[in-house]
Amino acid sequence: MYEEKFSEDVGSFFRSPVREIFKKVDLGSIYSFAGGYPSAETFPLEEIRRTMSEVIDKYAGKAFQYGATQGVPELREAVAERCGVPVERVQITSSSQQGIDVCTRVLVDPGDVILTSSPSYLGALQSFRSYRADIRGVAHNADIAAFKAEYEKVIAQVEAEGKKIKFLYMIPDFQNPSGESLTLEEREMLVSLAQEHDFLIVEDSPYRELRYEGDHIPTMYSLDPDRVIHLGSFSKIFAPGFRLGWAIAHPDILDKIYVCKQSLDLCPPIFDQYVAAEFLRSGRLDANLQKSIALYRRKRDLLLSQLEEHMPEGVSWTHPEGGLFLFLTLPEGFDAVRFYDKSLDAGVAYVAGEFFHPDGTGKNTMRMNFSFMSEQKIREGVELLSRLLRETL
Amino acid sequence: MYEEKFSEDVGSFFRSPVREIFKKVDLGSIYSFAGGYPSAETFPLEEIRRTMSEVIDKYAGKAFQYGATQGVPELREAVAERCGVPVERVQITSSSQQGIDVCTRVLVDPGDVILTSSPSYLGALQSFRSYRADIRGVAHNADIAAFKAEYEKVIAQVEAEGKKIKFLYMIPDFQNPSGESLTLEEREMLVSLAQEHDFLIVEDSPYRELRYEGDHIPTMYSLDPDRVIHLGSFSKIFAPGFRLGWAIAHPDILDKIYVCKQSLDLCPPIFDQYVAAEFLRSGRLDANLQKSIALYRRKRDLLLSQLEEHMPEGVSWTHPEGGLFLFLTLPEGFDAVRFYDKSLDAGVAYVAGEFFHPDGTGKNTMRMNFSFMSEQKIREGVELLSRLLRETL
Repeated sequence: MYEEKFSEDVGSFFRSPVREIFKKVDLGSIYSFAGGYPSAETFPLEEIRRTMSEVIDKYAGKAFQYGATQGVPELREAVAERCGVPVERVQITSSSQQGIDVCTRVLVDPGDVILTSSPSYLGALQSFRSYRADIRGVAHNADIAAFKAEYEKVIAQVEAEGKKIKFLYMIPDFQNPSGESLTLEEREMLVSLAQEHDFLIVEDSPYRELRYEGDHIPTMYSLDPDRVIHLGSFSKIFAPGFRLGWAIAHPDILDKIYVCKQSLDLCPPIFDQYVAAEFLRSGRLDANLQKSIALYRRKRDLLLSQLEEHMPEGVSWTHPEGGLFLFLTLPEGFDAVRFYDKSLDAGVAYVAGEFFHPDGTGKNTMRMNFSFMSEQKIREGVELLSRLLRETL
Repeated sequence: MYEEKFSEDVGSFFRSPVREIFKKVDLGSIYSFAGGYPSAETFPLEEIRRTMSEVIDKYAGKAFQYGATQGVPELREAVAERCGVPVERVQITSSSQQGIDVCTRVLVDPGDVILTSSPSYLGALQSFRSYRADIRGVAHNADIAAFKAEYEKVIAQVEAEGKKIKFLYMIPDFQNPSGESLTLEEREMLVSLAQEHDFLIVEDSPYRELRYEGDHIPTMYSLDPDRVIHLGSFSKIFAPGFRLGWAIAHPDILDKIYVCKQSLDLCPPIFDQYVAAEFLRSGRLDANLQKSIALYRRKRDLLLSQLEEHMPEGVSWTHPEGGLFLFLTLPEGFDAVRFYDKSLDAGVAYVAGEFFHPDGTGKNTMRMNFSFMSEQKIREGVELLSRLLRETL
């Protein structure tokens, strides 16, 4: 009835299969490897309660008033200090999903090309498609020369078509969905491709601080601060319910994001920003983060050992050094979308890997989250999923 | 350096002069009639503190987790009940500014026409322009036949140009910036024009509940619930720092807004939503709102009497029955943008009326807010502004 009333963008909207799952089932009542939810155990309720009360004492009415579009100065400064960047390069976003969306809005016209890994983060693909971007995915290749050649092939093709590459979208640390990280060499290679062909990079970094083993690798932003827009999030290091993230970029880019944000929502939530700032500056955030890391490391190890013990022949998976996910590859011919109904009926949820592939490949893959469920449920969930797979394969 | 990298939309972005003022001056240190800020006195700090603690007790980790894109059920239901609509018609927005922006995103392609009053809300004009809409403003006319004829003339012109009117944007109650309301007859006339020419209406209603005299007038939504998208806000009845609003519309329209919101920011802030829901359902919101209304009524009366006493000949102003603003008209030839520097130097801020006019007229007008300052400062501010005007006129 309203069809001819909608804008052209609407024709390219697609529903997040992950969010649709959340609409239908109560994740607490099943075995859910599906969401990217942190564990509620990691939310320090009493410390949050105390911090909220302190914010009310300290800021009074100011904590509930309108505020600056860039974010409250206290939070911008705390983020700038944590990330080692000047405060003029920090914009607080109302969720790092907003960071992705607003970058796309200010950079991409319909038909413009966005390069990304394949698979890649679903919420980013959803935003890119909604602006009618032409998304080109490149699969990872452990051989760096071959990996570079793949990118060069796609870039040459785009240039031959007379199209513009607006940016490369990457999650270099513990990627969603694969759980894998880019090596320093790979980061350098991608940054130098961006320099050579003059496109920007959007570096999405929500999981970076959740490292369970190995050494931190420099951000892509640090390799070329004027070419890379770095996106961060409080969702995985504090709590997603505050919907707060940040964008770090050259001031000329940030200025467009800032003006765009004025008309998007005026400013990020004020009280929540003061709470995050106090939590960060008091050291409570880092103390709590250390506990989360220990918990998630245990859960990751448990998931890996359970898969090892129960999964049938022919199933393989990634070994993430951090983050919230690992990625399962099933035998060729397996259809994780078709299998999903059977699995959900039996009480196990995951996200089919196909949804993360811009070109609809990856039918025999699935993403498994290990942060959300209790260790007991991870154990039982893997047993159940393995049994279902054994019956099917 | 980045110019050729930006999307075409960016060329139509414009900075909010209001937000730019906020960047430069501390509103607390001057006489500010500029912002649309509620008075911080109206934020019930102790009740908020208590409610926050109750939310933590009641919802624990759930209050800090991700949540449904439509909003948490408790808040959707509370809003549905308050507005007398089915819950399927309620989407919680991350600020009612987001409501405006997302409506434009899902309805408007570049060059599509949006009809609006002239003057109109600056944040809406900013959003409309950012999507390269063709904005046509119609001045109010107290003679309804003439008012209708004005709209018909503009509609005929748009139709002759072969363009599409996507929606009419209206703030029927205590409009920003004029402070004036549409009569029931005017609302009916506009709805029937929308029916006849088959366009939608976006009814922006942030001030509706701040009525200081006279009777409530039915919403435009109530006159045609399948054609009108109604936007509400917690900013003026609770506190703007939570950045929460709502959109009420036919489920087929709301579905597009919902899918769009998935990629915009996944979901509104969760903890803040529970706080708003508890505040609403406990009756605390209404009790506090009654106090705000009494306070603002006093401030409005004070501003009106001060203007009467101090303003020079040839200056007139609106007499709003509610809301946060009144609108001043100065003698023909006066330039409120040019006068602004002088005024700010002397310590008085306002917003020049020109910014609210889609066609750049209204140079001799200014918007004055009466909610933000103390009664003492309103008194002194009017005296100062009147003296400056007397020196200039």
